[in-house]
Amino acid sequence: MGRYVVGVDFGTLSGRAVVVDVTDGAELGSAVHPYRHGVLTERLPDGGPALPPDWALQDPADHRAVLRTAVPEAVRVAGVDPADVVGIGVAATSCTVLPSRADGTPLAELTLFRSRPHAWPKLWKHHAAQRQADRITALAAARDEPWLPRYGGRVSAEWQLAKALEVLEEDPEVFHRAERWIETTDWLVWQLCGRLTRNASAAGFKGLRQDGRYPGPEFLAALHAELPALLPKVDGPLLPPAARAGGLTATAARWTGLPEGTPVAAGAIDAHVTAAAAGAVAPGRMLAVLGTSTCLIMNAETVRDVPGVCGVVADGVTAGRWGYEAGQSGVGDIFAWYLDRALPTGYAEEAARRGVSVSELLDDLAAGQPVGGHGLLALDWHSGNRSVLMDHELSGVLVGLTLATRPEEIWRALLEATAFGARTVVEAFEAAGVRVDELAVAGGLTANRLLLRVYADVLRRPLHVVDAAHPAALGAAIHAAVAAGVYPDLEAASAAMAAPRRETCSPDPGRAAAYDELYADYRALHDHFGRGGTDVLRRLRARRRGAHPAP
Amino acid sequence: MGRYVVGVDFGTLSGRAVVVDVTDGAELGSAVHPYRHGVLTERLPDGGPALPPDWALQDPADHRAVLRTAVPEAVRVAGVDPADVVGIGVAATSCTVLPSRADGTPLAELTLFRSRPHAWPKLWKHHAAQRQADRITALAAARDEPWLPRYGGRVSAEWQLAKALEVLEEDPEVFHRAERWIETTDWLVWQLCGRLTRNASAAGFKGLRQDGRYPGPEFLAALHAELPALLPKVDGPLLPPAARAGGLTATAARWTGLPEGTPVAAGAIDAHVTAAAAGAVAPGRMLAVLGTSTCLIMNAETVRDVPGVCGVVADGVTAGRWGYEAGQSGVGDIFAWYLDRALPTGYAEEAARRGVSVSELLDDLAAGQPVGGHGLLALDWHSGNRSVLMDHELSGVLVGLTLATRPEEIWRALLEATAFGARTVVEAFEAAGVRVDELAVAGGLTANRLLLRVYADVLRRPLHVVDAAHPAALGAAIHAAVAAGVYPDLEAASAAMAAPRRETCSPDPGRAAAYDELYADYRALHDHFGRGGTDVLRRLRARRRGAHPAP
Repeated sequence: MGRYVVGVDFGTLSGRAVVVDVTDGAELGSAVHPYRHGVLTERLPDGGPALPPDWALQDPADHRAVLRTAVPEAVRVAGVDPADVVGIGVAATSCTVLPSRADGTPLAELTLFRSRPHAWPKLWKHHAAQRQADRITALAAARDEPWLPRYGGRVSAEWQLAKALEVLEEDPEVFHRAERWIETTDWLVWQLCGRLTRNASAAGFKGLRQDGRYPGPEFLAALHAELPALLPKVDGPLLPPAARAGGLTATAARWTGLPEGTPVAAGAIDAHVTAAAAGAVAPGRMLAVLGTSTCLIMNAETVRDVPGVCGVVADGVTAGRWGYEAGQSGVGDIFAWYLDRALPTGYAEEAARRGVSVSELLDDLAAGQPVGGHGLLALDWHSGNRSVLMDHELSGVLVGLTLATRPEEIWRALLEATAFGARTVVEAFEAAGVRVDELAVAGGLTANRLLLRVYADVLRRPLHVVDAAHPAALGAAIHAAVAAGVYPDLEAASAAMAAPRRETCSPDPGRAAAYDELYADYRALHDHFGRGGTDVLRRLRARRRGAHPAP
Repeated sequence: MGRYVVGVDFGTLSGRAVVVDVTDGAELGSAVHPYRHGVLTERLPDGGPALPPDWALQDPADHRAVLRTAVPEAVRVAGVDPADVVGIGVAATSCTVLPSRADGTPLAELTLFRSRPHAWPKLWKHHAAQRQADRITALAAARDEPWLPRYGGRVSAEWQLAKALEVLEEDPEVFHRAERWIETTDWLVWQLCGRLTRNASAAGFKGLRQDGRYPGPEFLAALHAELPALLPKVDGPLLPPAARAGGLTATAARWTGLPEGTPVAAGAIDAHVTAAAAGAVAPGRMLAVLGTSTCLIMNAETVRDVPGVCGVVADGVTAGRWGYEAGQSGVGDIFAWYLDRALPTGYAEEAARRGVSVSELLDDLAAGQPVGGHGLLALDWHSGNRSVLMDHELSGVLVGLTLATRPEEIWRALLEATAFGARTVVEAFEAAGVRVDELAVAGGLTANRLLLRVYADVLRRPLHVVDAAHPAALGAAIHAAVAAGVYPDLEAASAAMAAPRRETCSPDPGRAAAYDELYADYRALHDHFGRGGTDVLRRLRARRRGAHPAP
């Protein structure tokens, strides 16, 4: 008789649950539940005034609905006896954060606050707290806060503190009536086991908690006299990854169809649990989640200041090690921009004729050319640079255009530019003394075979492609297996349950050598445009902003 | 009773004749004759082996056919009495050069040579003599030839000497049997009046004739022992612009339907006669012919070394003054590349819906944005740079791309880049002490109103748009009026007969000031990529060449 765990991944537009075998991680069933309200960017569900630009909210009821629908459906599809489910884990986007009462009731679900936008969960991509983030960064830099280098020297508008300060300044009543300021993943665990806990990963990566404490009252008061009131709102027992947070309550057992008391793992961040699903928790193995942007996750024995890192957190990925997160702000969205804004007529028709997607057509047309054959070089800064330069004012560059330049050549140059961007991050890790031996890659872009080959050649490292339909949900299930006591730790659970490798792309020595030369030119351009050789990109951005005043 | 002159312009794909009134230059009739064989790039008319890459030949019979068909047709359309035609002038592309017998018979029309590609007229865009041109440049530089700076320090593969050396080295029999090596425009004048003459303009701009002589036998022998034999082949009476070369022969009178003895003007280069048609022969007035590339023509009282100039020639544009030619290697062809290779689906449909061309649609979408609003900056080097940098290894650059960048913004940045390129040339003239007060603009791109506005703002000078359907043919007609003695010189003839101004675009002070800032950034990029800040463009080009070995 088998034993099973359930993993639930709360994404941006939907949640999904998987049921996997604890012995080998095999996925036996899954179900997806699209959120009824998706992302709220225009109005609240009950209407009311338009939300300002850069706002992005979610409905807690949508998250609860995933527990009620996707979990039992996945168990049904898997055909297993719910009594054989020994644990459940959740992972969610982050920083997605909400104000709640002391009993876990979201303020957004109270009649008094239902029409107040600041009472609603703010999704990771709610970017309206940029001014607050800039002030936090400036203050931390001015005070030379020791935690600032752990975040590459910059606090993101996406994180807990910036969003909390935004609420305090724009709707102080919501701020003061919120007894808790909590990550959605921790709130979901609370919903499941009836006990408030905090996961150390989000507290560190998104809450600025370092060396055992959050930024203190004096720091917070320098931002706003009432901000120190935030500290009790973010307090609560801190759990390392895959710790047992509690057991399913009777209510949650009814929602999910699982036995009351089933162990519930601590909350977790989607990209971080994917490291376990990808078998990339050992030092030296980097996880790259390749999507619209790239998230790089890494475990190491030691803490180092890596330039441009998004965060370095003790117990950040697995218990007892230092977890690193880094990233590239533009990857798949640069390719999407190209397809939408610069792919000429005729390519879509040709792709349709061949029965392939336009990106497959471009790959086919570009793949045969030797390295450097297009004569192009690009900088992948269309969304700025949040890697080693940490500068959102930068923008994309394309050099080497001739009258003979073909669309598939520009396409390939853009793929290569993001690979060069990834290499700058890997080299920053290695220069700081954090070894990167190989990469596990997951995410939508792993379907692109040319991209995989280019990345392997440029990074000069083997790429192991994760073969999982729902890698973050699998990762949450692996966390559940540890929380249930099936495995002693994430390392062991990941070794047994990680997704198989769909394939391994190994670098070709000849192409890798040719890319070394191109990469040297990329670095020279990178430093010229990004490190003070010229400030032209910042000036162009400033002129553009000046021409389009903010609303 | 009126008096009329005929101007004939021999272009790349067709010839056209106009009949104009000598009093005011009004066009009374015109006719176009497309060449039967167009440009020969694949094979000779009778077949035979494939022509190598970069070859471009023409058929002298096609040129003669223009005299036989377009000239009488233009006179018929004009409704004038041929007896009232007092002169005829021709202009042609240059350097377009052919080998002929001493009686003017093209070698290509002799049975013995008809199948020999080197016996055929080599069109200006025959670019297969690049190696020869490079050797000529290197030798002239090594010997510190005083004429080299008159050509911006570089001899073009398009010119007479490079093409002659190519013939000598690749088909010496053609070289030795050619008793004349002659510009098509001079050959046409010879066909018309039965007398061999040379025009000083082509001899200078395309034949390296300076200070009264061609490069001498010693120089030529250093290139090839037998090359000094070229000197007698290029000899002949040298005529200043608009001089009378002779009168129509009986045969040519029969072809054209004009009276025998009608004065024939000296041969001329199409872009250069356009200066007269544009009323731009006085010092301080620059002619810009805006087409696939840009040709800039300028008259001045003095000779100066202007960096990157294509040529400075005494009697080059009008008798008694120094004519300057400069240019930009890529302008309209960059826009055409963009429309062909980077304009996304949907724009063509939207243009069709609005009943405009795609370039008009892009102009409409881009025109309202303030200067700098797109945040982009481009270098217009898709065809290399033949302006102040004189470097064909350079390539195009585009900086400032974001995920919000729209196609019409890239389009406008490309228009602006070519305007900035024009400004570098204008500034080089002024820095050398050659004043540029205003510009007359002609060519196909003058239909683009956004482009005109951008050029006026960037150049900070008024642009007078020439209103002539066939400006080079009108220019040839103005030369004919001088040759016929109707006017004492080109200055007087141009003052009376130049095309009217369709409009004048004056710079807007606010936009011009904003463009000054962008131009400063253009110059910084220009110098970084073009003047040794980085050699990345040359390396990219070399890698591209290495990946695609020459056939």
